[in-house]
Amino acid sequence: MNQPRLLDGKSVAAAVLDECRAEVEALKSRGTTPGLAVVLVGDDPASHVYVGSKVRTCGELGIFSRKIELPANTTQDELLKVVRDLNADPAIHGILVQSPPPAHINEEEIIRAIDPRKDVDGFHPENVAKLALEDPTGFVPCTPAGCMKLLEVAGIETNGAEAVVVGRSMIVGKPMALLLVSKKSNSTVTIAHSRSRDLPAICRRADILVAAVGRPEMVKADWVKPGAVVIDVGINRVADPSKKSGYRLTGDVAFEEVAPLCSAITPVPGGVGPMTIAMLMKNTLQAARQSQA
Amino acid sequence: MNQPRLLDGKSVAAAVLDECRAEVEALKSRGTTPGLAVVLVGDDPASHVYVGSKVRTCGELGIFSRKIELPANTTQDELLKVVRDLNADPAIHGILVQSPPPAHINEEEIIRAIDPRKDVDGFHPENVAKLALEDPTGFVPCTPAGCMKLLEVAGIETNGAEAVVVGRSMIVGKPMALLLVSKKSNSTVTIAHSRSRDLPAICRRADILVAAVGRPEMVKADWVKPGAVVIDVGINRVADPSKKSGYRLTGDVAFEEVAPLCSAITPVPGGVGPMTIAMLMKNTLQAARQSQA
Repeated sequence: MNQPRLLDGKSVAAAVLDECRAEVEALKSRGTTPGLAVVLVGDDPASHVYVGSKVRTCGELGIFSRKIELPANTTQDELLKVVRDLNADPAIHGILVQSPPPAHINEEEIIRAIDPRKDVDGFHPENVAKLALEDPTGFVPCTPAGCMKLLEVAGIETNGAEAVVVGRSMIVGKPMALLLVSKKSNSTVTIAHSRSRDLPAICRRADILVAAVGRPEMVKADWVKPGAVVIDVGINRVADPSKKSGYRLTGDVAFEEVAPLCSAITPVPGGVGPMTIAMLMKNTLQAARQSQA
Repeated sequence: MNQPRLLDGKSVAAAVLDECRAEVEALKSRGTTPGLAVVLVGDDPASHVYVGSKVRTCGELGIFSRKIELPANTTQDELLKVVRDLNADPAIHGILVQSPPPAHINEEEIIRAIDPRKDVDGFHPENVAKLALEDPTGFVPCTPAGCMKLLEVAGIETNGAEAVVVGRSMIVGKPMALLLVSKKSNSTVTIAHSRSRDLPAICRRADILVAAVGRPEMVKADWVKPGAVVIDVGINRVADPSKKSGYRLTGDVAFEEVAPLCSAITPVPGGVGPMTIAMLMKNTLQAARQSQA
């Protein structure tokens, strides 16, 4: 039984945050305190947890943060006004509206209302285009940016590698594919999805396999080529009566059976998850830096 | 020896143009004469040929066209002013600046200056993003749109098919991959390129193989799975002393040896080429139609 290398998102994220801390100091010494606004509409408990840890991380780094909590019955126009006020606020360099908003909110219109120079989630069409065009002034969505950083820090060769991305969302799958196929990474990239024929065979081609579908433990041992690098973006709750909470967290990969085959794999939790917040901090600093130019 | 089906771009383009002719009449009856402006800077002979046939096709369909020829020493500011005047001109629904402009012109800035609602080439970041986001109000670049139309008219199943796109440009490769992986097409898509390892083996996986690299006859018989559909986007001039002109046109696919293996293949010329202008006309009508809303 092979002992695979764990791609430890916690320690890589900690190193990214250390770099951020140094850059915050540098920005402050040049007169700019980076600022992030996090807007939360309604009372989804998971969203409150995410927003809380984003704000807490800002505090740890010396980034100014503003948490704006709005009631679930906030109207589209009220939310648009909040975003526009933040666009105009010179103390705020990054704006994010926590997803998902309540059902009556048109999320796409809200994203488009964010000044693209403050769109640290990287979801505004302007930043989507910059990613496709390989323009480094754009903001890369935090989760795929975190996956790339994990690969980079682990020294995993992407040049000429066969990468397979399972999932075609604009949050993870498509941006991940664009990053891997870019002239910086030069992977051969396959985008597969729920409608792909023979997903196991497609995944078995991968030197680098990225699972981003949100189906617990879908990727089994016979989906993975021995020696592959596996990045598990999934964070799924599955019922587990043996736990006090009644559930456990699991990824899109059946870790126990897949890990022994891999040259490297991300655990869940502690893999991609911590990277997402770290890359959000990095994007906020990029926004602050670019606001000075 | 198998007799492959030829995907006849000339006849499909003619059918698209017939549809366009009918829509021009409908638009005129509602008071809108669709208008296309084609801007040409300098005296590249191939560009003059392309622009000429775009303008001629407009004439055949009853689309108003304006050809603006500017000297090679036109400045960036002068060209920007031309674009802005066209943006403001209500008789013009589509604007294209023929590529490539002279070397002193910053083409990206010019493309960004075009009103995205008039960007019938589909190169503006706003339309790049709409393609990635699968927003049908955007303009799809004409060449990949033409390839999709050829597949559609020929009744080729894209759902669950393995598609391989060789080439990662923003003009063909990336948009083609985004179209094939969209929820409308549902192909499993691999993007390969010059830095891919073992291109022949990657191409041999393809049910649908799209070659868009600009290397004459690169794709050989042993790169193609028997029964595959092959779309050849390349239009390369190769020296041929037996021709009066001294050259012949050839695609990225070694047609003579590949065709017998395929279930369907585009010839060069007469395959993808004629589709590009037809889809430009279709985009111009989409722009005119959307301007009425």
